[in-house]
Amino acid sequence: MNIEKYIRDIQGFPKEGILFKDITPLLINPEARTNCLKILVDSLEGQKIDKVVGAESRGFFFGMLLAQKLNAGFIPVRKPKKLPFKTISASYELEYGTDSLEMHTDAIQKGDRVLIHDDVLATGGTAKAVCDLVQKLGGEIIQCNFLMELTFLNGREKIKDFPVFAALTY
Amino acid sequence: MNIEKYIRDIQGFPKEGILFKDITPLLINPEARTNCLKILVDSLEGQKIDKVVGAESRGFFFGMLLAQKLNAGFIPVRKPKKLPFKTISASYELEYGTDSLEMHTDAIQKGDRVLIHDDVLATGGTAKAVCDLVQKLGGEIIQCNFLMELTFLNGREKIKDFPVFAALTY
Repeated sequence: MNIEKYIRDIQGFPKEGILFKDITPLLINPEARTNCLKILVDSLEGQKIDKVVGAESRGFFFGMLLAQKLNAGFIPVRKPKKLPFKTISASYELEYGTDSLEMHTDAIQKGDRVLIHDDVLATGGTAKAVCDLVQKLGGEIIQCNFLMELTFLNGREKIKDFPVFAALTY
Repeated sequence: MNIEKYIRDIQGFPKEGILFKDITPLLINPEARTNCLKILVDSLEGQKIDKVVGAESRGFFFGMLLAQKLNAGFIPVRKPKKLPFKTISASYELEYGTDSLEMHTDAIQKGDRVLIHDDVLATGGTAKAVCDLVQKLGGEIIQCNFLMELTFLNGREKIKDFPVFAALTY
């Protein structure tokens, strides 16, 4: 099954000049969704995963499915002030300025084998910030995986210390 | 297994005087998470579900697991301007002012049997807005389910036209 046809191109979202990759057709089709999950899981080649970290908020979708399939914990990484317990923070650069992401301090135990998931690997800023959070808490990053990689943005370079996998590349 | 012990009370979040129910301990424990999912699925008593609608963003967690378990489509309902395709909108009241939620116009086909999921049933404003969206597109609401219901806020009254289930009540 070709999962690519379940990714919909939206021209000019969120602003002019951007070609947005809409994953909602993939979420709404159980067969395509299951196939995509299998591709992501198979890429791990049976490696044990203790925790799956998903980035707000499109990383929550397959992040949760991965955690459930791998019988691992799920950890949401969120925008500032969204998580209620004690947090650590990592910042990343935007086109103009910076933003940051937070994770609960008790989310990862030292030595936990961690899978990081997000929907898209673009510039790699978000993914790098998530890696920073995991490492601050002593987790071992087994893989960063994505539904899609926008290779022309070269985000892979920012997380080159870790194995990276994307189900689709553009 | 008692899933209640995986809900953590956070006093004063997001603001003073609020006792917040933190679900991250439930997300991070595969056994408790699986048990909670089973409770939600069992409440449906085998009824066929075509689509699961999850409300941004904590409704995405178990919403996705429910969709996967039920072999149903998943539909994210999001805050304004987050969804890239054509949307319909429904508004709801906040303590001060109003807010709104959006759903893609192609998310539901007339007659689809729909399960609505969110983490908490509080005043019922969000849940009612999601029900409005589903009905606008001609979906049949089979159940609204929640991880938790804050019964003292009487949110159930706002969605009394539909079956309501909560795994935990406070």
